[in-house]
Amino acid sequence: MTGASAGPDGGAAPVIALDAMGGDHGPAEAVRGAVAAVRAHGLRVVLVGRRAELIPILDELDALGEVPVAHAEDTLAMNEGALASWRRPRSSVAVACKLIRQGDASALVSAGSTGGVVATSTVRLRTQPGVLRAALAVTLPTGDRPTILLDAGANADAKPEMLVQFAHLGAAYAHTAYGVASPRVGMLTIGAEPGKGNRLARKTSELLTATAEDAPGLDFRGNVEGHDLLAGDVDVVVTDGFTGNVALKSVEGAVRFAFDQMRGALTSSRMAKAGALLQRKALRELRDRLDSESYGGAVLLGLNGTVVIAHGASRARGIERACLLASDLAGGRIVDQIRRRVGTAHRSTWLSRLSQHDD
Amino acid sequence: MTGASAGPDGGAAPVIALDAMGGDHGPAEAVRGAVAAVRAHGLRVVLVGRRAELIPILDELDALGEVPVAHAEDTLAMNEGALASWRRPRSSVAVACKLIRQGDASALVSAGSTGGVVATSTVRLRTQPGVLRAALAVTLPTGDRPTILLDAGANADAKPEMLVQFAHLGAAYAHTAYGVASPRVGMLTIGAEPGKGNRLARKTSELLTATAEDAPGLDFRGNVEGHDLLAGDVDVVVTDGFTGNVALKSVEGAVRFAFDQMRGALTSSRMAKAGALLQRKALRELRDRLDSESYGGAVLLGLNGTVVIAHGASRARGIERACLLASDLAGGRIVDQIRRRVGTAHRSTWLSRLSQHDD
Repeated sequence: MTGASAGPDGGAAPVIALDAMGGDHGPAEAVRGAVAAVRAHGLRVVLVGRRAELIPILDELDALGEVPVAHAEDTLAMNEGALASWRRPRSSVAVACKLIRQGDASALVSAGSTGGVVATSTVRLRTQPGVLRAALAVTLPTGDRPTILLDAGANADAKPEMLVQFAHLGAAYAHTAYGVASPRVGMLTIGAEPGKGNRLARKTSELLTATAEDAPGLDFRGNVEGHDLLAGDVDVVVTDGFTGNVALKSVEGAVRFAFDQMRGALTSSRMAKAGALLQRKALRELRDRLDSESYGGAVLLGLNGTVVIAHGASRARGIERACLLASDLAGGRIVDQIRRRVGTAHRSTWLSRLSQHDD
Repeated sequence: MTGASAGPDGGAAPVIALDAMGGDHGPAEAVRGAVAAVRAHGLRVVLVGRRAELIPILDELDALGEVPVAHAEDTLAMNEGALASWRRPRSSVAVACKLIRQGDASALVSAGSTGGVVATSTVRLRTQPGVLRAALAVTLPTGDRPTILLDAGANADAKPEMLVQFAHLGAAYAHTAYGVASPRVGMLTIGAEPGKGNRLARKTSELLTATAEDAPGLDFRGNVEGHDLLAGDVDVVVTDGFTGNVALKSVEGAVRFAFDQMRGALTSSRMAKAGALLQRKALRELRDRLDSESYGGAVLLGLNGTVVIAHGASRARGIERACLLASDLAGGRIVDQIRRRVGTAHRSTWLSRLSQHDD
């Protein structure tokens, strides 16, 4: 990610509407993150939230003239789900969506509750033409090359046609955020051979094999399994939101468990403790690298606007990274890319069906 | 696990039919594992496989009189799936099942391909009366108290009624193998609140809440998420075979990944390397503890006989542990326990539906 201050066509950098009220740590971290994004990377950020709370924080950072504020009197609580968010048209997330609809911003960044942000932005930004469902994409902490997992939880019940589109959404993400020319796509299932999995996975695999032949920039590599998620063999892993959410949280929980166990083992004897002291720096660096804040957050793909959902526990640094990611995606015109990819895929599926009838 | 030489009612120890041909490392490891199980724990084991290959190995270990051999001329290949196993009635797994059907053995242990062993034993042992589907149960490498995950892959497409039964199968396992009097059961889904998840999870949760009120020895604790799998908060985690397999492999892959990254970090500088030397023992012990061989393998629950599937890469120690687990389960009469539990659950569901009609 580069986070340039000008768009790829030389135009002005996209405007990021930052929900300053979401997140576990209150507006102070959001404002600090915004100021860092503006000062260090030349991003254009609008803070959305209660003006009376935000102005003093900006003042304290001596940044009153640098970051504008759009007032929103209401907020989504961290425990608020999909339903409650409908009833709050004046929440900071809803107001940020309004800025995007009016053309005053290109992207929304929020550290609010995932359920609330997904519901509010889906209702208020709507899915792009041709896109069946928006999908939540996360970047897994793989070694060298990032792997994008989607859907990570937006659609608990999905259909094969949706998953085929998710492949295109993920490919557009890999291309825009990480510069992967022809993203390799795998489908998460059980067993490496074709035909393995549940009904949804088997049907999706068939469709992906058929459409990938004609779709430009989509390299379908077949099945991947749970233990391949961190192997870095593909750029995009496609699955439904239920399986994706379980897999993501299983990985996060297992990495945390392994670290905790390791720390226990490394401090279990005096000899080991002495060793741990010598390694403190190496372990800290590793933990930083695996830290979810480094990746900027989850992205809701397929809406008429870029939506980045930072981790609820994000500090200023996490907010700053999320703003950078949002700026890269919006600056790279991911919405246009998705329109082209999904449009092409529709046409090529339609054409290949026609030609099958000719046989 | 104790692995006593006498059953709980003072009868003879159950006979374990060990597929000596399955596994990545050939019959030598299986035979060594069997001999260790017999000599160290007083287990009763029958080796099933090609007599001409097994006798020389037994001879070499000076164990000809200790472990009997049942001849089977055919074997399942490690890459053989469900279909091929049907066509091999003389495979070592099929012959072991025959011993169980005839009453000459109580349990099957195999390190063969999971797909092949599940298919063969399901066809040849059949599900117990009242049990809709057999489920594959694995023990997760949690900290203090083991957590059983099922279904780990036997049923890619499942129905809510099957998952409710899986709760009873898992509870019987936790009770028999680990002595948990009233196992705490969680259902794997996305989100902690009731009503979260896909259609299958939501319906299963409703049914489990209704049946657990009347079912003895089943303590339904509601939803658990991916990051709870290793937390040890429940004794049994219920899910469908697709989600369970993805979750299990995600956990295994992530733990391995974290170890590899850690090893990289610990040997990245001279200081860190010196530290790693001091900690070698602590790390080795931890790896041993998380090693899947320690847990004896996956168990296929719900058939007319105990089936333990050891890891394909099992060495003698893994085979020995699998035989111990099989002996504990068969000696604890897990098949009878499941019959009682499933029967009671059926009655109580039926009764609670009747009483609802009365309202």
